[in-house]
Amino acid sequence: MSLDLTADTSVLAAAVADAARLLPVKGIDPLLTGLLLSGLDDEVVLSGTDRENSIRLRRNAFVHTDGQVLVPAKPLADTLGALEEPEVRLVVEGSRLAIRTPGGRFALPLMDGELHPGVGALPAAVGQVNAAELIALVGKVASAASRDDALPLFTGVHVQGRGDRLALVATDRYRMAIGDLPWRPEGELDVLVPAPLLAEVAKQARAAEVITVHADGTRFGLSWPGTQLGTVLLASPYPDESRHTDAPVDAVVEVDGDALAGAVRRVAPYAGPRAVVTVEVGDTELRIRAADPQNGEAEETVKATVDGDRFTHGYQARYLADALRVFGPARLRMSMRHGMRSTVLAVSDFNPEEANLRYVVMPIRMPTG
Amino acid sequence: MSLDLTADTSVLAAAVADAARLLPVKGIDPLLTGLLLSGLDDEVVLSGTDRENSIRLRRNAFVHTDGQVLVPAKPLADTLGALEEPEVRLVVEGSRLAIRTPGGRFALPLMDGELHPGVGALPAAVGQVNAAELIALVGKVASAASRDDALPLFTGVHVQGRGDRLALVATDRYRMAIGDLPWRPEGELDVLVPAPLLAEVAKQARAAEVITVHADGTRFGLSWPGTQLGTVLLASPYPDESRHTDAPVDAVVEVDGDALAGAVRRVAPYAGPRAVVTVEVGDTELRIRAADPQNGEAEETVKATVDGDRFTHGYQARYLADALRVFGPARLRMSMRHGMRSTVLAVSDFNPEEANLRYVVMPIRMPTG
Repeated sequence: MSLDLTADTSVLAAAVADAARLLPVKGIDPLLTGLLLSGLDDEVVLSGTDRENSIRLRRNAFVHTDGQVLVPAKPLADTLGALEEPEVRLVVEGSRLAIRTPGGRFALPLMDGELHPGVGALPAAVGQVNAAELIALVGKVASAASRDDALPLFTGVHVQGRGDRLALVATDRYRMAIGDLPWRPEGELDVLVPAPLLAEVAKQARAAEVITVHADGTRFGLSWPGTQLGTVLLASPYPDESRHTDAPVDAVVEVDGDALAGAVRRVAPYAGPRAVVTVEVGDTELRIRAADPQNGEAEETVKATVDGDRFTHGYQARYLADALRVFGPARLRMSMRHGMRSTVLAVSDFNPEEANLRYVVMPIRMPTG
Repeated sequence: MSLDLTADTSVLAAAVADAARLLPVKGIDPLLTGLLLSGLDDEVVLSGTDRENSIRLRRNAFVHTDGQVLVPAKPLADTLGALEEPEVRLVVEGSRLAIRTPGGRFALPLMDGELHPGVGALPAAVGQVNAAELIALVGKVASAASRDDALPLFTGVHVQGRGDRLALVATDRYRMAIGDLPWRPEGELDVLVPAPLLAEVAKQARAAEVITVHADGTRFGLSWPGTQLGTVLLASPYPDESRHTDAPVDAVVEVDGDALAGAVRRVAPYAGPRAVVTVEVGDTELRIRAADPQNGEAEETVKATVDGDRFTHGYQARYLADALRVFGPARLRMSMRHGMRSTVLAVSDFNPEEANLRYVVMPIRMPTG
């Protein structure tokens, strides 16, 4: 095995760190902890996979001797990330890949690259989307997905092309985030993608302008110049959100998102072990309340514009707080329904040119009397 | 019980948070989770104790009705810390202390203040010290104390008056920090103080100029305008540090602290499970090395001025890194000895007008061959 290259330390360190985050640190197949480094002409290609997710990055380098090696990704990322010199040389020396700087030498054991499954090409492109808009929307939608691997369906984000809009839907069964944004479709798209892969986009694509979406019947991918991220699809079918968004509404409340979030944050600690806050719809305000004999009781009033019926709903404080955090300081519209039917939050003034987000929270049954 | 006062929200919130940090959140004696609030004239006094540590804070307030109540400290701190209004009113309403703002009411259950042990006066003053200097030195010394309550002796900081210097010594048996700074003594002082209480000084005394030290045979305290912190002493006797600082030295190495810290940080991950780095004293440099068949091997060279013998020592990487972190970017003097005898780090140019710090790390036995 051979390889000898010199690269900008910070560029290489950032790329290796991005790749290492997707790879296991240990596991039954130690080869998957490895990162493939291929030097050819004036480029180094980094690729790795945990057999579900895969990553392939191209970066500039001065390649003195072409070749490919497999080395443990995490230690390589740690050493590169800690270097202070502007340039670093990677060179195969016997059974080691040496990381050399003027004052230091760090030598990682080579792994058997022949046995690594490698990283293939992404499936065909199905459309393109603005990078900054996708990053912003993914961050808001993916937080509603479950982190519990016991129900894989709910760890995914449903990604669907709907005409000139790209829809992203996530739910952990207790709340649901429904987002969509403009895109340029080039094919059909209706897939369930692991949420952690989408979250990587926000970490890695900050400098990208346009992101290309790739998919076929079993795989999904995202690419922008220098980067390819791929993953295996989760099994569908996914719950349909239209019963939450399309059913008739009994009250529409407009309220300042920050003010409501502050009230929920301050009142919630008084809710005790059930962790339920009640929202009472008044004529010109919402009253947020919580009480528990052990903890005392709390109440805050938030000004609101109310159109429709007056009633009181209980919500799990955490889900209401999560939803409000996603919207931030915007003016919000809460569409509420009687009974145990969903409440939908959205911004009051929706601009169809931009990304749109709706967040569903479910009222919970209150103790009677 | 009565009490009715209005106070500046941020001042009161900061004081209650400082007090709450020292108090238990739950425990076999629920009364100790409480904070005593006493309003009289234009002042509110906050006091609490966990029977070992105690705190007593005075802050300005508009007291409408004098009185004293006991309420759970943590919920009070949380609610005050989350308020956005500039002023807050605390008023007894029935069996509750209500925290009132224009838009909200938060009501905490009153506890039985009659049963609380209360917080007495600190013991007599034994000297005074500059607040900023004490804060800086405590932060460095206390980090060498143990966090393991199984050996209470090593969770303490030995605080001793030595003429016009105040000495602070902490060790967890594996490394030792020895600091001293100028002070104005007014009496004898030789006590072992729980490190966490000293660490509170850095959090609370940032605005103070002079700190008064209090002690008697069983208690220790620190005070500055508006604040009294007290604690029960730990049992002595404490290990004597002079065998580390006064014994003859075989090599004196002068080296840039940041450069050495960087080398140790980068090399240490290659050390494997023993986590040992070796330091080889050369003619004009230190060589920092680590190796493990699984992890590979690493070496960095750091320029140094060497006076005395040449030899190689192994150190636990973590303790060496901790010591170097405490000194930061200063030029350091390492006083090294043959065999399993201590290495002492200090800054090269010690100014006797200022605080002084020495840090002892022990070499460890290296595998032969």
